[in-house]
Amino acid sequence: MQLPSVLLENAVAEFAKLPGIGKKTALRLVLHLLNKNEEEVKLFGDTIYTMRNSIKFCNRCFNISDGDICSICSNSMRNQQIICVVENIRDVIAIESTQQYNGVYHVLGGVISPLDGIGPDKLNINGLLSRVENDQVEEIVFALSPNIQGDTTIYYIQKKLQNTNCKITTIARGIAFGGELEYADEMTLAGSLQNRLPVQQYVNG
Amino acid sequence: MQLPSVLLENAVAEFAKLPGIGKKTALRLVLHLLNKNEEEVKLFGDTIYTMRNSIKFCNRCFNISDGDICSICSNSMRNQQIICVVENIRDVIAIESTQQYNGVYHVLGGVISPLDGIGPDKLNINGLLSRVENDQVEEIVFALSPNIQGDTTIYYIQKKLQNTNCKITTIARGIAFGGELEYADEMTLAGSLQNRLPVQQYVNG
Repeated sequence: MQLPSVLLENAVAEFAKLPGIGKKTALRLVLHLLNKNEEEVKLFGDTIYTMRNSIKFCNRCFNISDGDICSICSNSMRNQQIICVVENIRDVIAIESTQQYNGVYHVLGGVISPLDGIGPDKLNINGLLSRVENDQVEEIVFALSPNIQGDTTIYYIQKKLQNTNCKITTIARGIAFGGELEYADEMTLAGSLQNRLPVQQYVNG
Repeated sequence: MQLPSVLLENAVAEFAKLPGIGKKTALRLVLHLLNKNEEEVKLFGDTIYTMRNSIKFCNRCFNISDGDICSICSNSMRNQQIICVVENIRDVIAIESTQQYNGVYHVLGGVISPLDGIGPDKLNINGLLSRVENDQVEEIVFALSPNIQGDTTIYYIQKKLQNTNCKITTIARGIAFGGELEYADEMTLAGSLQNRLPVQQYVNG
């Protein structure tokens, strides 16, 4: 795709660096901005730069925050004795939108993945361990993606926590709501058979 | 979707203003930029603002340009006597990428669409008329989308040009290459039967 202007080409290249945005989509976005007036485009750039420049991470849970401690950690209505361990901020937002969880979070910033060069030292694991030690945490709920990397991370952290008497759980795995049994993979189906639950729990739940 | 930071929310809102980008995609893009270092994010915003601020439109054809006259209009190797009339810059890029057209362009900046409040006065039609008058143009090729708005625009401009002896054509309409006859709409199929071509033209083409 030959573009008629170097300035246009640069802008398209910047957009095309974003995940899931190819050169054609980038061009569409750039031409959209070209039709906007100057102030709007300035606001667009400035808002994003200010966000990157001024945003903070919560000192306790590493969630995104406007201050030193995030709105969830500083909320006295939430149960500070239950910590949900997640991979990233997106997971916090996903769990918050269920409105079913009243504890606090701990954002690891990734999962252990030796193939990608991510060892335990690159994750916020020490922060979690010291929280468990100092804050009288009653339960750690792992909400990591159900795959090898997630399981490795759970195994690693669980080992580190074995001398505490903190309860360690993980979110349930099984057939997703609306999913079709016949299309479920064998591992998921086998696991959901093994961990079958009394129907009563669903009828009352 | 409740976001944990106002700064994040503002940035997501800015991205979500772009066409085809919803709030979830916007969040993914913003979190991607959050992981980049400050200079990269500054470059992103600056490149887009510079593009908006410094880009010019060709005085002759209204294509995007780095100078007063675009690289196509100023190219002496191109046939300045044939003008291809298109709706927007994306169409110029699409036609250029076929490498089959050696004339010049005229970008209307839209098509006549009374429902959207776009009348002939909002389009670069006068520029086209004066080019036809002054530049000894031999042929006008309309390459507008085949719909009511496109056809209305062709009809309007063609009326204005009826006193000149400039040839007026439009790009061929018919079944697209790789398309299936049975799925073609009746209007397209009927038109492609009426405007059937000697096979010779394809064998030698």
